Amino acid sequence: MEQLPPPSPQASPFFDVRMRGFRDRVHVETVIGMVDDHSPPLPAETVPLTEAFGRVLASPLCAEVAVPGFNRAAMDGYAVRAEETFGATAYNPLSLTVVGQVLPGQPFAGVVESGQAVRIMTGAPMPDGADAVVPAEYAQEVGSIVRITEAVPPARHVSRVGEDIAPGRQLFAAGRVLRPQDLGLLASVGIGTVPVVRRPTVAVMVTGDELLPPGSKPSGYQIVDSNSPMLAALVQRDGGQVRLLPIVPDQPEALRQAMQTASAEADVLLISGGSSVGREDHAPRLLAEMGRLLVHGVALRPASPTGLGQLGAALVFLLPGNPVSCLCAYDLFAGRAIRRLAGLCGDWPYLRLPARLSSKISSALGRTDYVRLRWVGPATTAEAVGAVEPLAISGASILSTTTIADGFTLVDAACEGYPVGATIEVYLYDRVFANPPRSPQ
Amino acid sequence: MEQLPPPSPQASPFFDVRMRGFRDRVHVETVIGMVDDHSPPLPAETVPLTEAFGRVLASPLCAEVAVPGFNRAAMDGYAVRAEETFGATAYNPLSLTVVGQVLPGQPFAGVVESGQAVRIMTGAPMPDGADAVVPAEYAQEVGSIVRITEAVPPARHVSRVGEDIAPGRQLFAAGRVLRPQDLGLLASVGIGTVPVVRRPTVAVMVTGDELLPPGSKPSGYQIVDSNSPMLAALVQRDGGQVRLLPIVPDQPEALRQAMQTASAEADVLLISGGSSVGREDHAPRLLAEMGRLLVHGVALRPASPTGLGQLGAALVFLLPGNPVSCLCAYDLFAGRAIRRLAGLCGDWPYLRLPARLSSKISSALGRTDYVRLRWVGPATTAEAVGAVEPLAISGASILSTTTIADGFTLVDAACEGYPVGATIEVYLYDRVFANPPRSPQ
Repeated sequence: MEQLPPPSPQASPFFDVRMRGFRDRVHVETVIGMVDDHSPPLPAETVPLTEAFGRVLASPLCAEVAVPGFNRAAMDGYAVRAEETFGATAYNPLSLTVVGQVLPGQPFAGVVESGQAVRIMTGAPMPDGADAVVPAEYAQEVGSIVRITEAVPPARHVSRVGEDIAPGRQLFAAGRVLRPQDLGLLASVGIGTVPVVRRPTVAVMVTGDELLPPGSKPSGYQIVDSNSPMLAALVQRDGGQVRLLPIVPDQPEALRQAMQTASAEADVLLISGGSSVGREDHAPRLLAEMGRLLVHGVALRPASPTGLGQLGAALVFLLPGNPVSCLCAYDLFAGRAIRRLAGLCGDWPYLRLPARLSSKISSALGRTDYVRLRWVGPATTAEAVGAVEPLAISGASILSTTTIADGFTLVDAACEGYPVGATIEVYLYDRVFANPPRSPQ
Repeated sequence: MEQLPPPSPQASPFFDVRMRGFRDRVHVETVIGMVDDHSPPLPAETVPLTEAFGRVLASPLCAEVAVPGFNRAAMDGYAVRAEETFGATAYNPLSLTVVGQVLPGQPFAGVVESGQAVRIMTGAPMPDGADAVVPAEYAQEVGSIVRITEAVPPARHVSRVGEDIAPGRQLFAAGRVLRPQDLGLLASVGIGTVPVVRRPTVAVMVTGDELLPPGSKPSGYQIVDSNSPMLAALVQRDGGQVRLLPIVPDQPEALRQAMQTASAEADVLLISGGSSVGREDHAPRLLAEMGRLLVHGVALRPASPTGLGQLGAALVFLLPGNPVSCLCAYDLFAGRAIRRLAGLCGDWPYLRLPARLSSKISSALGRTDYVRLRWVGPATTAEAVGAVEPLAISGASILSTTTIADGFTLVDAACEGYPVGATIEVYLYDRVFANPPRSPQ
C-alpha cells in the first residue's frame, strides 16, 4: 500500500479549499431559524388604496365615522310612520298620500306627517318623520295615493346609523393582508391611504465568466444566465421589489465592488453563482471579510453550496449557480426572508396536498432532499388526491425537471426516504388552479 | 274586500318597472355558460421574459438549441481518459500529469493525451481527448501530478450535449401559465421574449349621484364609492388591466356617453350601480338599446340585479351597487370572464376546503345563495378541516361581513340549505397562507 502524502493547501488551492469547506454542513431547520431571526417586518410606508391590495397593514385601522352615516332605506318602497300601518293587509289596505320621493344622495326636504308616505329607493336617506319602509311589493300607487297592504314595525327595512360599522371600531389588526373587499370597506369610512409594511428591495446579482445575459443566444462555451429571470419572478411572487444587476465576472475585486454597491441599496442581496468552495467561488470569502458569513454549506441536496450572511443592513443569500439548486435554496431560505420582511407569513406560497408515492424515494440520513414530483395517476387511497413519482433527484443543472414536475417534496434529514405506496406531502408549483386536481394527468 | 285597480305603468313608473323586471331570473349556471361562450382567450402579444411571470403562453415554444450546448463537467475534479483509470484504487492509485485546468466559459486549448489530466470545475467544457471526470474526492494533486484513487467509466460525471434539452423539443404547450423556473429554462435556450395571451383591459365604472370618490370623507347624505377600489383589486388579481373611470351621475345621457367611450377602449366594462329595475337604473335599458342585454336578473342572493351584455366588442357586466352583491356578482361572472380572456382557467382562485357547519343554513329553492362563513373552531370529523358558522346572509350593503368572514359557500338553487353538522365546501378569501389551517381561530 502506497502512503499518500497529506493534502497540501499550498500545492493545490483549487480543491483543498473545496475539501475543507463543507466539513460541517448546517441543518436546514437551523438555517431557517437564522433566517427568521434576521427577517423582522420592515418599517411602514403609506400607500393609496389603489396600491394596497395584498399589502400587509403595519398598524391597526379604526373607523372614524359610522357606516351607514345616516338612517337609510334597505329596500325600494315607501317610507312611512310604522305605527300607522298596524293592521294593514291586502283585505284592509291603508291609504297614504305620497308627498314626495327620495333617491340616494337626494334627501326629502320635508317631514313625513301622519297620513303621508314618501317613495324611497334602496340606499336613500330616510325622511324625517318616517321610521320604516314598506316594500314596493306591498304597496300600490295610484295618482297621489299609495295603498299599503302589509304592516311594518318601526325600523323595518331601515339600515340604521352605524349598523355596519360603529365609529371607533377597529376594522383591521396590524398584519392583515388586505383583501379586495377590505379596500372597499376602508374607502367607505373615508380612508384613502393606508400604512403598510414596506416591500423589501431585492438586488439580484449573478456571477460567472461563462454567462451571457438573458435574451442572448448561447454561443460557444458560454451559457445564458437562467437564474436572474427565475429569481426575479420568485421575488415578485414573494412581495419583493426586484433590482436586476449586471452579470459580475469571476474577479474578486469586481465582485467586491458589486456587493458593496448592491448591499447599500437593497434590503436583500441574492448572489447566484460563486457560492461554493472552488477557486472561483469568491462570494463566501468576500462576505466573511466585508460583513458576516453566518452560514456556508447546508445539509441539503441539491443546494448544499448555499450561504447566508449580512453586509451592512442587507441580508445576503449566496445561492448556487446550478439552476435547480438555486431554485431550491431560494425557496427554502431567501423567499422566506423576503416574505417575512414584507410582513407576510414565512410559509411557502405552495399548496400542499397528500399524494401516494408510486416509486420509492431514497435519501441519505443527515441531509434534507428536495425531490421533484410528477402526477402519474389517480390515488388508490382515500387520504391522497393522486399518485406521484419522483423525477431524477440528481442533476442540479437540469432545470427542466422543475418545469416538467408538478411539485416537490422535502425528505427530512432524519428520514431515509419513502417506500412505494407511502402517502407524502406534495407542494405544488402552480398556484393558478382553484382546487385540488381530481384526475391528475 | 276592496278591489284594487291593476297597476298602471303610466301612473307609477318608479316601481312598475321594478315589479316587471325580474319576473324570470336566470339560473347561475346558465349565466356562467353564457359567460364562457363570450370569453375566449384574447389574441397574443409578445413580452420580454421579465414581464412573463404568471402570463399564459399563446403558442407552443420549442428549443432551437441543445442544453447543455457542449459536453461539460458535472462535478469538480479531473477530466481524464476513462479507460486509463481502469483498476485505479486507493491501494493502487494512478498517477497522471496535470496539464492545465478549465473553468466555466474558459475551455482548455489543447487535447488531453494518454497519461494526462486536466483540472475541471463543474460546468466547464470537457477538454478534447477526455471523456470522464474523476471527482476531487478521489484525486490528490501534488506538484504537477494527480493521483487517481477510483476508476470511472466513460461519460461518468459528464453532462452531455442535449442531456437536459434536445434541440427541437417542445418546452411548453400553449396555455402554460409560466412559472419562475420556466422563465429560467426559456432564457437558457436563448429565448428572450414570449408570445402570451393579451391581458384584458377592464374599465371600471360606478354610477350614482350619492357617491363620492375613494379618498373622500363621507359627508351629509353622500357615501364614498367602495366598489371601485374593490373591483380594481379583483381585476388585478384575475390578470386584467384596470382602467378606473370617473363616477357617472344618474343621468341617462351621461351614462350613455360614458358607456360608449369606455366600451370602445376596453375588453370588459364593469358598471356598478344602476343595474336594477328602479327609475334610476338606466344601465340595463341603455345596454339593450346600444348593444345587447343578454341577461338581466339572476336567481342569486344577494346579487339578483346583475346583468350581462355586449357593447361593441366589449363584454359588459352590470353589477349591483350594494358592495356585497357587487363582490358576489363580480366573483361569479365577471372575474370568470376576465380570467378566461387572459387565457387562465375560469375557476375561482380561491382555495376550497371541507368544513363542518356549526349553525344551519336555510336557502330558498330555485335561487343560489352566496353565504359568508367564519371559522369557529376545530372540526369534529376527519373529513373537515374546521368548523364554520354562517354570517348574516341578508344585508347586501354590509361589506364588513366579507371582511370578517374567512370565506364563503354557495348553496345551489336545487338545495334548501344544510343542517348543523353538515360538511360543506368553503372557498377561502385569503390566498396568502401556504396550507390549510390546522387550528382555525
